[in-house]
Amino acid sequence: MAEPLPDLIEELVSDTSSDDPAAILTTLAGQDDVYIATLLESLPVERRLAIWEGIPRDRKLDVLVEMRSDPREILIDRTPHNEWAAIFSDIEAEDLLELLDSLPNRLVDVAYAELDAQQQVFFREATQFGDAEVGHWVSHELLVLPLNAKVREGLRLIRRNVPSHCDTIFLVNRSGQFSAAVRLTRVFGAPEHLPLVELTEENIPTLKGRDETTSSSLQVQRSGYASLPVVDDSNKLLGRLDITSASELINEFYERQVMASAGMDEDEDLFSPVAKSAKNRALWLGINLLTAFLASWFIGRFEATLQQVVALAVLMPVVASMGGIAGSQTLTLIVRGLALGQVTSANFRALMIKELKVGGVNGVIWALVIGIVAYFWFSDVVLGMVICLAILFNIVAAAVAGVFLPVILDKMKIDPALSGSVILTTVTDIVGFVAFLGLGTLFLL
Amino acid sequence: MAEPLPDLIEELVSDTSSDDPAAILTTLAGQDDVYIATLLESLPVERRLAIWEGIPRDRKLDVLVEMRSDPREILIDRTPHNEWAAIFSDIEAEDLLELLDSLPNRLVDVAYAELDAQQQVFFREATQFGDAEVGHWVSHELLVLPLNAKVREGLRLIRRNVPSHCDTIFLVNRSGQFSAAVRLTRVFGAPEHLPLVELTEENIPTLKGRDETTSSSLQVQRSGYASLPVVDDSNKLLGRLDITSASELINEFYERQVMASAGMDEDEDLFSPVAKSAKNRALWLGINLLTAFLASWFIGRFEATLQQVVALAVLMPVVASMGGIAGSQTLTLIVRGLALGQVTSANFRALMIKELKVGGVNGVIWALVIGIVAYFWFSDVVLGMVICLAILFNIVAAAVAGVFLPVILDKMKIDPALSGSVILTTVTDIVGFVAFLGLGTLFLL
Repeated sequence: MAEPLPDLIEELVSDTSSDDPAAILTTLAGQDDVYIATLLESLPVERRLAIWEGIPRDRKLDVLVEMRSDPREILIDRTPHNEWAAIFSDIEAEDLLELLDSLPNRLVDVAYAELDAQQQVFFREATQFGDAEVGHWVSHELLVLPLNAKVREGLRLIRRNVPSHCDTIFLVNRSGQFSAAVRLTRVFGAPEHLPLVELTEENIPTLKGRDETTSSSLQVQRSGYASLPVVDDSNKLLGRLDITSASELINEFYERQVMASAGMDEDEDLFSPVAKSAKNRALWLGINLLTAFLASWFIGRFEATLQQVVALAVLMPVVASMGGIAGSQTLTLIVRGLALGQVTSANFRALMIKELKVGGVNGVIWALVIGIVAYFWFSDVVLGMVICLAILFNIVAAAVAGVFLPVILDKMKIDPALSGSVILTTVTDIVGFVAFLGLGTLFLL
Repeated sequence: MAEPLPDLIEELVSDTSSDDPAAILTTLAGQDDVYIATLLESLPVERRLAIWEGIPRDRKLDVLVEMRSDPREILIDRTPHNEWAAIFSDIEAEDLLELLDSLPNRLVDVAYAELDAQQQVFFREATQFGDAEVGHWVSHELLVLPLNAKVREGLRLIRRNVPSHCDTIFLVNRSGQFSAAVRLTRVFGAPEHLPLVELTEENIPTLKGRDETTSSSLQVQRSGYASLPVVDDSNKLLGRLDITSASELINEFYERQVMASAGMDEDEDLFSPVAKSAKNRALWLGINLLTAFLASWFIGRFEATLQQVVALAVLMPVVASMGGIAGSQTLTLIVRGLALGQVTSANFRALMIKELKVGGVNGVIWALVIGIVAYFWFSDVVLGMVICLAILFNIVAAAVAGVFLPVILDKMKIDPALSGSVILTTVTDIVGFVAFLGLGTLFLL
């Protein structure tokens, strides 16, 4: 049984004697590749490199394949050039595709040269698709037979070797076009002379090489099959997308969403070098700074008012943050709906109306609560009424922005998970400040 | 082939004639359950109910099982009581477990009565585990043989029926304890009289009923097996966790994270009734309001300063938001690391140092930029220096909070994905305002 990862990290980080490659080897020998990859990602860079050196060369490729790009690139960077031929000695097209973004060009050439002719074809085929397309992630370990094959040939094929997560034989015609699939379990027990065609599955979904990875992966996940066939535009069988790859692609999709909400990408390394990490995050801080200055500029328009009614300055954060929270709730719901294909132009209007109503209800409730608190705090009825109106207005505006923004960004092919929240908060900040200070100028001066 | 979901939603929402159940039935008959479930979730409530009525009774259960709790509960609520016996007629323990949270008690009783004796045992067994434990989600469609079985018996079992996503036969001893697993592919082609024990897999991981679902699901996903055995504390075989269930559990984990960041749960319905939706979100707005008032209270301590230097009020949002963004970047990274088991007490210190350095670098850069902008904007050197120091201080504090907060919350068994961001922003708001206005009071009055 695998030692729980946290325990092992603890051991390796605290016990300096385990810098000794032999000791590490013993500890890690029984673990799977993902375990080792996760461990390496969890270690500070120097310790990570020390352990990386201790991993046998014939496992290094498999471990690299399982790592995220950022932590992986550090290891690739520090691996002596003369080791690569050994590391790549058993490389296949799928491994190289997985590593593609992390390898410098000269290493891609070294790896490509190690592929056999068939794998080179697979590699070139896959690189014709972008990494957001299914064709890029196709597996070539298949059970394929001609359309006229019999159960006998099916059994022979199965006895020889069944790849993992493969529960169907694909039947292709003479031009290599996908025709049908037969479940392995239907092949056992069937009479040997029966044509496989008589056992085919009805309605097995086929994926196109150009299909988008997340929706295709969800299709694999819910299909009940261990993998689905992937074909090109002329229906030629390219390979299959199996449920493990599908699940990994879905995991990546979600990680991208989670990390994007803070302006980072899913490959961010826990222990990336400080310079790199600071640079990755600086852009997001910079964009945010522009929006913050924009909000400040609007506040600056009301300097005279603020000077006379300091209570407005004290309460500004309340107005801004209630709008920000209400808006981000709507935004999050709509972004998820868009990602799952549930939000479309057809139900957009109905969604807008519902979110407006929710915003209205919460707007009224919280506007009253805040108005009353402000009244008692500053003993000023008009101030209470001003903040009450500003909050109501901002929460309703937040609902509108929360529905419209992601849909518009999506239409502009901008990921709403990434930029949605920063734009939304800018809108709610500015609307909130202007409404609050504007009303204050009208009624309190 | 399935019509793309958005097109169908478009059609159903815009074309009122499709209220006719017969037309809907024709459109949906060829679609799988997840497709229909997703479609129902995408429709406004009245339209959703109209279509729900048109779905044949024998499919209703399967569709319900695939839906999220919130949208599902609306349908359950509006289904006439006399329909339930028919809907539940083929129910199994797993379906009932999936629906458990959504069904009123009286319907749980109706459904339980429809389970056969064996399924009732499975149901009671599973409910002894919480829904964050693997034991709750175990599948009972298994291939099981006694430890002394031969290949012949294995082949007989396989020919009878192989459940989907099942690639191993489990061998158990006389007390029903799990002993070993044999891959189906090793059974074909092996001599009929060979004991299965000689073909067993080495090192197949077993899951415990009490194991946490997300980490166990990741283990299934990376195991290379279509499912892993699940045992109880005395090693008795409870069932298996297959890769589809594992993937769904992982999807739910990620959705929980995404939705939690806005204070919602993953079952939130796109079209839940306004009252329910407003109520769900009100709590989060209320918590946030308390923190906003807290920040206001701190600002209020500096009323006298604000009155004299209005520029401070104008620039407050800049200080707060830079801290908030920097902190949420660190927080997001650490929360993900915790969820994946990569952040532990062992590497905590190293992480803290790295995040402090990143915060220091970005803090210095942005503090200078903002200081210079503020100087030119308000032609005030001291103001520039004050905001410069406040920004630096707040970004560094944000890094500390971003690392400590999630780890502390995690230790307290509070989900850091849910409460982390609201606490973090409170910290960065207050630290930012106090540092900025405090320094302003010291140097600008």
